[in-house]
Order: sequence, then structure tokens, then C-alpha cells
Amino acid sequence: MTRQTNPFLELAAPGIEALKPYLPGKPISELERELGITHSIKLASNENPLGVSEKVIETLSRCVPELSRYPDGGGYRLRQRLAEKHAVNPACITLGNGSNDVLDMVARVFLSPDAESLFSQYAFAVYPISSQAVGAGLRVAPAKAYGHDLDRMLQMLTPKTRVIWIANPNNPTGTRLTDTELYSFLLQLPEHVIVVLDEAYFEYVQESDFPDGAAWLQRFPNLIVTRTFSKAYGLASLRIGYGLSNPAIADLLNRVRQPFNVNALAQSAALAALDDEAFIQRSIALNNKGMQQYRQGFEALGLDYIPSVANFITVDVGEDASRVDQALLREGCITRPIANYGLPNHLRISIGLEEENDRLLTTLKKVLKR
Amino acid sequence: MTRQTNPFLELAAPGIEALKPYLPGKPISELERELGITHSIKLASNENPLGVSEKVIETLSRCVPELSRYPDGGGYRLRQRLAEKHAVNPACITLGNGSNDVLDMVARVFLSPDAESLFSQYAFAVYPISSQAVGAGLRVAPAKAYGHDLDRMLQMLTPKTRVIWIANPNNPTGTRLTDTELYSFLLQLPEHVIVVLDEAYFEYVQESDFPDGAAWLQRFPNLIVTRTFSKAYGLASLRIGYGLSNPAIADLLNRVRQPFNVNALAQSAALAALDDEAFIQRSIALNNKGMQQYRQGFEALGLDYIPSVANFITVDVGEDASRVDQALLREGCITRPIANYGLPNHLRISIGLEEENDRLLTTLKKVLKR
Repeated sequence: MTRQTNPFLELAAPGIEALKPYLPGKPISELERELGITHSIKLASNENPLGVSEKVIETLSRCVPELSRYPDGGGYRLRQRLAEKHAVNPACITLGNGSNDVLDMVARVFLSPDAESLFSQYAFAVYPISSQAVGAGLRVAPAKAYGHDLDRMLQMLTPKTRVIWIANPNNPTGTRLTDTELYSFLLQLPEHVIVVLDEAYFEYVQESDFPDGAAWLQRFPNLIVTRTFSKAYGLASLRIGYGLSNPAIADLLNRVRQPFNVNALAQSAALAALDDEAFIQRSIALNNKGMQQYRQGFEALGLDYIPSVANFITVDVGEDASRVDQALLREGCITRPIANYGLPNHLRISIGLEEENDRLLTTLKKVLKR
Repeated sequence: MTRQTNPFLELAAPGIEALKPYLPGKPISELERELGITHSIKLASNENPLGVSEKVIETLSRCVPELSRYPDGGGYRLRQRLAEKHAVNPACITLGNGSNDVLDMVARVFLSPDAESLFSQYAFAVYPISSQAVGAGLRVAPAKAYGHDLDRMLQMLTPKTRVIWIANPNNPTGTRLTDTELYSFLLQLPEHVIVVLDEAYFEYVQESDFPDGAAWLQRFPNLIVTRTFSKAYGLASLRIGYGLSNPAIADLLNRVRQPFNVNALAQSAALAALDDEAFIQRSIALNNKGMQQYRQGFEALGLDYIPSVANFITVDVGEDASRVDQALLREGCITRPIANYGLPNHLRISIGLEEENDRLLTTLKKVLKR
């Protein structure tokens, strides 16, 4: 809606007018009904194809007697557990309704119409959305090989730059930064610039030179690391993620955090999920095999793809990807077109079960023009 | 933390400095461990003592295979169902991670350092918190008989007043406004002032002259009604509530809403809960009996209480309530002292099961000085 059709826009805070209302995808059930298909596979949202740990399922059944009770607003047990995991003080942890919630808290605390937000081309859509919602200016650094160009980002700093957003690995391209690249970048940043290091896909990365941002919190007081339980831990439905930062920043984030932002089942499930390292290892192994499967499949089809270290792979279909997406949908294969990220010929495909990956590759071959 | 101890405050947006970080209560398990008690009763958070509908429990078990999938970000089915319930268009509905989330969205859209927020003395703590988080000015209208003084609120309007917050029934006092009082107030308000009518405790009210704000949406385009599933529906652990407003306002609220703010289990549970009207009726009947039990109990103890239409009752213990609270805690009875609301001699007591209410009244008699 515009000012012509929405008289309340005039009353809204700065930034709201330019914000695009979020247009969510239809639920699978609706999509299947509309397209007249069944048994579709969803490889669109980078979810864990193994589901969740059995320990999570057992734990959730124990939550039933307490369903009518408010969650622990302070997340006492979970923060203790996460503090142990990362060898930090519990005061460093900010729990979020998904890590999206933590990203939003960062924007609310540190951004305003007087400040600017800096992020890379092809970076996660929530960075500009959260920034715009509080009226901040946006600066977009051109990408290098579909990933972050850190030198360029340093050159683009202005006196108004307040928050820099870096996803490692990056979504939707799956690229990564090494420990030396990122450390050197952080050393060159002024301390009054807050860096958000979004590690949503951290668990999948096997490379030995991949950094663990949590280990750098003491060295860089301006660093905020975010993690999620929505990917490798398989808890996307429940919404839970967290921020790691020095306690002074966590104090500010917790001021704008809603008192009961993380539901009780998510807290219990996260605790159970942290206790099942074997599930994570199985998930990683499955992901490694699936990644190999897609690389070989794309090479056999003569398609270029962006080398990825995450649980998805972004492929250049060599033509308008929205047509390919529609054709795949009619065959019951749901992937993610990313024209909204400026990549109109690419599809982002989540790595699923072996048979799902097979079906996707076979269907892709069928629907491509060539 | 202050500017002396938190160097990042200097970088924070207006309003953050004055915000008190939320200090959540300890989980019951922690409290029991510290006090060396067991079998405590919690009558502190206005939760449904009957728990949840059996239909909710059945539904949640069916969610297990989809735990690793993202929720429907648009809340398609639930919004359809709520639209039917309230006889409005689904475009009028904004889903929240609890109604707290919707209140926060209102503040983010309509308030800013240039605008003022108006609410009553003894009103819900989230109104000033959400307002301050976006740097808005606060105006507090003195209460009348522990409830809203609407005439006084009208007199206190300034050119900067952008949002008025009204809870009906009010929390933490349990008072209410009648349909004629509220309608006449809304008629006198300029249309550029947004009114939030917080109906979290709506289901409990039996009085025939109690208004249903949802019926007034067409008449008052500046009206936002909020409802929750945390009270009578018993879903506090899951976090789900919603706003009802004209579609132009809902469009703006949805712009700042996080894409997956409502978890999948909460959406499914809410749908199931809406299908069990008998559970709500049982909950209301239990509440009516419990309310009677407390009134008689307080009268027998010679204690004044604030007549309440909600699922809690606020009683004047005739001395410093924090001492009484501590004494009750040692006996395993958790209630809510409300000195932070400016009522240092009052305790807010949620209506529980008959035996819980009995135990509370017996223990209160024992610990009171007189």
C-alpha cells in the first residue's frame, strides 16, 4: 500500500514507508492444492532433512503438563548451557525467537535515522529489512565472487556507519570467509562500529580455517555473533536462536527483547538438541554426501554453481530461473528462486535426503530448456 | 548498567538508555531449590489452572514430523479461522509472538522520539517499555478507582500524542470499562490518534455491558484490538496472540513483523484451541467459583480487594506486600507483588484450582501480621 491507499502511512515512523510488507510463501498444503500435486519435496528453506533428534521429541512430550505456563523469560537453564558450550559468561547471551529476533534487536538498539547499516550484495534479506524498519540508511558493498568483499566494505565505511552485517557462511550464496580474512578485517574496524557475524550455517562447515566467532568476543568488544537452532539442529518450527557478545552489548539487546520472546518448548527442545551431538554428526555426514551429489549432478548437466560450505547450493540454471522454478513446482519440487537477491538466473537448493536430491536433479534435467 | 559501566550506551538509539533491562523471575524449579521447598503453587502469572484443551495436546503430537520445517510465516489457516471468528477480513489480522509482540509492533510503527504515548497509572508494564524502546515520550493519566479515567485521558492529549493504550479488563487491577464509556471515548478522539485496546482477559468477562472491540473496527479506523491465547486458552508457554485492526494499519504492523514470528506449534495449538469452546466454558466456570472463593476469603480476613472481572484479583494486604510475598514464598505460594506498578501494599493473585485458592487463603491468614 502507498500513501494514496494507506492514510496511516503519514503517521508512521521514518523507514516504515519504504519497507516492503513481507509476502510469505504459501504453506505446502495450499501450494499442493493449487497445483493439483501431492508428494512434493521441499528443498527451499535450508531445513534439516533428518528432522530433529529423538531426544527433542522425548523432551517435548514432557512439556505438555506445563503448556499453560509462561516460559522462563530469562532462559536461565539454556543460557547456562550455552555459556558452557561457548566458554563464555551467561551474561554474554541474548536469546531470540530465531536468530532473526536477535538481528532485529541489534537494529533497534544501534540503528536509527541518523545511522547507517552496511552489508554485502547478495546478503541475507533480513539485514536491510531490520535496518529500514528503524529508518537507518543502507549501504550495499558489491560482492566479490558472490561473497563478501571485506576490503571494499572497509573502504565504504562512513562516519555514520554503525552496524556491519556479515554472514559466514553467506546465505543465499554459500560462500565463506576464512579466519585470517575475517580477523584482519575486525582489526581494521573502529570500535564504535558494531559487527554482526551471522553464523546460522556454522555447524555444516568442515574447513579447518573456518573461524568460530565466539572465540573472538574478548578480543573484539564490538562483535556480536548469532547462531540458530533452525538449521543443523532441526528446530525451525519452534523458533530459537541466540546472540553472543560482550555483556555490555547483551545488556542493551536484552532491554529491547520482549520478556517472553522464546517459547518454552523451544527452550526445552534446544537443551535436548545440544545433548545429541551424534544427530549433528549424522546431519553433517548426510549434508556432505548430498553436496557431492549436487556438484556431480550439476556438472553432468553442464550447470555452473557457486561452491558452498552450507546446507544448500546455489546453481545458475542458464535461463530465467522463475520459469524453471514454476516447471519444478508443477513436478512437486520446491526450491528457492533468488531474483529478489539480484540473481535472476539462480536457484537456491537445500540439500535434502539422497532420494530427494535425486528426484530434484532428475526433474531439473527434464524441465531445463536445453 | 549506566554510561559509566556500559560504553556502548553512547552508541545506542534514543530511549535505550532509560529502558530498564527486563529482570525475569526465576523458574519455579530454581526458586524451589533456593528456598528448599517443594509442591509450590504458582498464582502469579494469570495462567489457566486447567492447563490446555485435550484437542491442543492431540494436535501438538501431530506436529512432530514437521518440527524441522519453518512455520507458515503468513499464518494462513489461523488468520482465516480468526477472520471467521471475528467476522472480519483476514487482512485485518496481525499475528504476534504473544500479544506483547503486537504491542511492540504498534510502538515501532507509530511511535518515535517525536511522538508521545499515553496510558493510565496502574496499566500493563509493556506499554511504557515498548514506547521507551523507540524513544517516545510517556504520559501517564492518573487512575480513577484503580481503573482508566477516560475523561482525564482526553484532557491529557497533546499534539504529539500518537498512541493511547487501554487494557480492558485492566491488568494488574482487574477493573473494566463499559461499552458506553469506551464508545463515547473513542468518538471524542481525533482519528490521527491510534488506540490500542488490549483485551487479553476478554474471555473471562461475563458482564453484558462489556464491549467487544472487534465489533467496532469499521466504525473506528484508528482502533487496534489485541487478543491473546495465553490466558483462557491456556497457551502461555507457546506464545501466540493477535491484533485486529483495519487492513491499512495491519499492513503497517506486518511490515515490522518478523517473517516467522509465530512458531508452528503455537499456530496449530491455537487452531485446536479455537475448536474447543467447552474448555473455555469450563475455564470460565472455574474462574467464577474461584473469584467468589477469594472475595469471601478476603472479606473473612478483613482485607480490601479491587473488584475484578479477570482471572486474578488484587488485594490490599494492609502492610508492605513484599514481606508478605516473601513469607508466602517460604510456604510455597507464588503470587505477584506489584510495587513496580505503584501498589506496594497489594498482591495480585491469579485464580487457581479450588484447592490452590484454599491453600493460598489459609497461608495468607497464617503469614499476615494481624
